[in-house]
Amino acid sequence: MKYCSSCGGNISRRTPEDDNRERAICDDCGTVHYQNPLIVVGCIVESEGKVLLCKRSIEPRYGYWTIPAGFMELGETLAGGAARETLEEACATVDISHQFASVDVIDAGQVHIFFCGKLVGGFGVGEESLDTQLFSEDEIPWDDLAFHSGKFALEKYFEDRGENNGVHFHELRRSKTVVFRCLFCRCLLGKLQTTGQRRRRQVTTKQCSVLKHDRGCAG
Amino acid sequence: MKYCSSCGGNISRRTPEDDNRERAICDDCGTVHYQNPLIVVGCIVESEGKVLLCKRSIEPRYGYWTIPAGFMELGETLAGGAARETLEEACATVDISHQFASVDVIDAGQVHIFFCGKLVGGFGVGEESLDTQLFSEDEIPWDDLAFHSGKFALEKYFEDRGENNGVHFHELRRSKTVVFRCLFCRCLLGKLQTTGQRRRRQVTTKQCSVLKHDRGCAG
Repeated sequence: MKYCSSCGGNISRRTPEDDNRERAICDDCGTVHYQNPLIVVGCIVESEGKVLLCKRSIEPRYGYWTIPAGFMELGETLAGGAARETLEEACATVDISHQFASVDVIDAGQVHIFFCGKLVGGFGVGEESLDTQLFSEDEIPWDDLAFHSGKFALEKYFEDRGENNGVHFHELRRSKTVVFRCLFCRCLLGKLQTTGQRRRRQVTTKQCSVLKHDRGCAG
Repeated sequence: MKYCSSCGGNISRRTPEDDNRERAICDDCGTVHYQNPLIVVGCIVESEGKVLLCKRSIEPRYGYWTIPAGFMELGETLAGGAARETLEEACATVDISHQFASVDVIDAGQVHIFFCGKLVGGFGVGEESLDTQLFSEDEIPWDDLAFHSGKFALEKYFEDRGENNGVHFHELRRSKTVVFRCLFCRCLLGKLQTTGQRRRRQVTTKQCSVLKHDRGCAG
């Protein structure tokens, strides 16, 4: 975010007086532009013991299989959004039963909320799909699933065996290895395994073994 | 939204080719600015059969009582956000048990997600609160609660009596009465009860009783 969506002014990041974290604030009109997680809603659609999956015709994860799911829109409910995505991606009507899983996808700034329900009538191939199919548990293409959150949801769905056991929670964070090298000769000073969006890059103080420099950098 | 946050160009609302609803699109760089519902996370904090409520020191609903709750932030989980809000508003640590309620607040473009848990240690009065207190079910200030979603959550919490019965769903829409009057003499032609963000204002075709005009308007 570079410009204010209200007045077109320049944006800078600073902490408002009555807040405890940095926000995008307009230098001209002072509008604070909050950025918050988005909701993805999805549905496991069951028919005669099998579940409906869609082979993606769009990026990311073109060609991989997914539960019908997508971003919740303004003006709809969580369950309504899950049913709409099912209609759009698999041309299928679903009679939603209950919410059974929720995955915090921290680095993407998303929460994925999953419902389950019964297929009503037939299904087809929506615009965002190359193919749609019903799979029994042992037919699921586990190695070709598009997203970790959907894999978690499918696993918990089969564990539940149709019972409502409340919401299964899961947290996904990407981990990253940051390598620290000497600022001058670039020799390796250390490694740091980091996770999450708000990771901090720590600078080591270990001495460089060649030139005895003691300043490191992440690189 | 008037200006593009990426390039500062003018925004117009139109439907992208590969989409089925109007979006805010930059006339210059073509960036599509999606607008989606926000997540509010809250927690019913229990201690010895009583629940912790906060009297709000900020608008909206200054002076009314609420469950500790607020907007989920980037970089945190749903449950982590609920715990953070509890800490900020009631200076209290909570050991979260499970999610038990979810309210779609359609017109506000929000989803309110509620957890329950046990108070760990003491509590205090946070910056956004005038007061915090523990209430038994029959002491709850039902007529002075800040938000309908919190009232629903409290009702369901006491119905559950500590059991995990899955997620209780609720949908809140503001209803609005639109009055149609004759375009010319302003006599009443009809009323329409509308709900939700995407309501459409229908123009009646009933004749005006005075001047026999048959064109109405919403006003």
